[in-house]
Amino acid sequence: MTQAERWMLPDGIAEILPADAKRVETLRRDLLDLYHRWGYEMIIPPMVEFTDSLLIGMGRDVDLSTFRVTDQLSGRSLGIRADITPQAARIDSHSFPRSGANRLCYAGQVLYTRPRSPMGPRAPIQIGAELYGVESLQGDIEVISLMVETLRTAGIREIHLDLGHVAIFRSLADAAQLDEAQQGALTSLLQSKAVADIERWVEENIASAQAAKWLRNLPRLAGGSECLARASELFADGPEALRNALDELQQVADAVARRYPQVELFFDLGEMRGYDYETGLVFAAYSPGHGQALANGGRYNGIGAVFGRDRAATGFSTDLVAINTLGQNGADEAAAILAPASDCAQLWQTIGALRADGEIVISTMPGEGGGDTETLARCDRELVREGDDWVVKPRG
Amino acid sequence: MTQAERWMLPDGIAEILPADAKRVETLRRDLLDLYHRWGYEMIIPPMVEFTDSLLIGMGRDVDLSTFRVTDQLSGRSLGIRADITPQAARIDSHSFPRSGANRLCYAGQVLYTRPRSPMGPRAPIQIGAELYGVESLQGDIEVISLMVETLRTAGIREIHLDLGHVAIFRSLADAAQLDEAQQGALTSLLQSKAVADIERWVEENIASAQAAKWLRNLPRLAGGSECLARASELFADGPEALRNALDELQQVADAVARRYPQVELFFDLGEMRGYDYETGLVFAAYSPGHGQALANGGRYNGIGAVFGRDRAATGFSTDLVAINTLGQNGADEAAAILAPASDCAQLWQTIGALRADGEIVISTMPGEGGGDTETLARCDRELVREGDDWVVKPRG
Repeated sequence: MTQAERWMLPDGIAEILPADAKRVETLRRDLLDLYHRWGYEMIIPPMVEFTDSLLIGMGRDVDLSTFRVTDQLSGRSLGIRADITPQAARIDSHSFPRSGANRLCYAGQVLYTRPRSPMGPRAPIQIGAELYGVESLQGDIEVISLMVETLRTAGIREIHLDLGHVAIFRSLADAAQLDEAQQGALTSLLQSKAVADIERWVEENIASAQAAKWLRNLPRLAGGSECLARASELFADGPEALRNALDELQQVADAVARRYPQVELFFDLGEMRGYDYETGLVFAAYSPGHGQALANGGRYNGIGAVFGRDRAATGFSTDLVAINTLGQNGADEAAAILAPASDCAQLWQTIGALRADGEIVISTMPGEGGGDTETLARCDRELVREGDDWVVKPRG
Repeated sequence: MTQAERWMLPDGIAEILPADAKRVETLRRDLLDLYHRWGYEMIIPPMVEFTDSLLIGMGRDVDLSTFRVTDQLSGRSLGIRADITPQAARIDSHSFPRSGANRLCYAGQVLYTRPRSPMGPRAPIQIGAELYGVESLQGDIEVISLMVETLRTAGIREIHLDLGHVAIFRSLADAAQLDEAQQGALTSLLQSKAVADIERWVEENIASAQAAKWLRNLPRLAGGSECLARASELFADGPEALRNALDELQQVADAVARRYPQVELFFDLGEMRGYDYETGLVFAAYSPGHGQALANGGRYNGIGAVFGRDRAATGFSTDLVAINTLGQNGADEAAAILAPASDCAQLWQTIGALRADGEIVISTMPGEGGGDTETLARCDRELVREGDDWVVKPRG
């Protein structure tokens, strides 16, 4: 192994150096404070759990994303978390149960076996909030609002919100009596938005003319609010669950538009993202010029059932580092005060008082003096002796 | 797998629930702010690296503590960090090099294959500070001071500081011409403080009467400041490196005593902790009634050489969760304001203004009303309509 190889980090694994780390840490605090003011309480789940606990009820994507190691104490498989949401659900079900609403938030590194997008990170810092025990749409609206506030706090001004609903495809698949293999095949086609392939697949697989028409049109039902009107017309005789889903989308869109008139709303009724464990409304936030979703979430009722408590659940999360980079406001590093290398007790007290006031004070190390140009460059003032006192003076 | 098994966490792996999480987060911020005011800049290293980078130059303990997985992208071994210090050293060597002093700090979860003490944690949150590029004892004194300030910030009042020096055993081992196997055997005996076994081992293995006397007395050289005086006498004709080490211990002890007269100082010249990668002064902080060290550190010059830059290095770290538990001051959760379930735009603005002022405002979810006793218990005030306004009133 060469020295250069020892420096290198694996693909998709990044370290955050001082200037950026300061900004990431500031944003982390601002966001956790935001969630706190909305009544969301912080939890700190561990980096690993038994794989069985981490992955139960999760979809194949999370499963394939999770690194596994063998626990030397129990011999069982441990998973390194690829998602904090299932940990929050487990905590709501068992460790921190509430009969009514339970608002939880978190921030921590997660790890993926492979990046989720080309050049994407494999060890992002996931930050988010989850709301348990609330069935009503008000819950989804609160969580979407908090997602919007999160991006604004990060300094991201232009926000596009994509809304979808898992029940739309599910109810159409039921109406067309698709078996599991067929659902999987059609899901893949919808995910890749391959309109011509979808047409052909529907023609070959769907007998009912009406179901065929519905499914064929699904990938086209994407766009602004006119898309909901078109869907209402197309699915006038559609399954009830589908019509309820359209109604939910309309209500949520109206509420969000009232709260955040600047946020642009889009609908994608053939959206297949989040079919891992979501069960209702799904949402994602985008910023123009940035292809990947900045934040996403959705309703995932019932996930707690595997832990013994079937709870309503909705939430969102985002990558703290990614939104920090995108929204970066360029906070400047505060200038420091240089203290001489001296063992004087009074100097030590003066330094302590300055630090207690929030000043950065850097003690010169003996033998380095003027040679440490990088430390000197951080200091615009210095402590100098005047009579019996140590006073702060501008550095000449 | 039963439901109970799904709830369970592996031995030594803990989750932190809201009341504690709030305190841990507050202490985390206070400590990072403390380091910031001392000129230490935050870095956020990743949770995994190539095993070769993480472990090179590290001792066997860190090696055995490190979980490994295979990177699906490169086919190489990845290590999940069991210690952040080597990551900081790598960053000082290459990603964030400075010609003079480089002050870095960090906070993050690490993972051990096995707990380091019976019932100890396997996923502690390591927080600490490292000082690179400073050869002088002033560097060790700064780092020890920061370690003491860390424990005080956590609310730990009674602090015992243990000082040792790697050069003491190393120079005696050289003087006695111990080979590697002998060094290993004697190290184990010293670690277990088995005085009778040490006597026997020295008798059987050491020919020189003087070296035998030195080694036999090593485990007895532990205690208060009188111990340094005894050592000076015993090693009056001892190796120069050993006498320099005693001199360093005296200087550091004097400086710490001047700064922190309340801290009790102890010496343990046969201390074998930190022989993994430390090269000079080693130190650990204890609290009466708590058997494990609360924080520890030491000098580890030269670790950067494997990355291409041989740098002076000293630093310390601690487990954020452990010191939070020990120093707990019982911060109370702030009371919240309850907001009714309403879509009124003016209510939404009022809630926004209260949250901007730092208040916790929890929106009631429809259909739950008075039933959600846990949420209600958090709220001592509520928003009520008065004419055209929404005002905060005490909850009756």
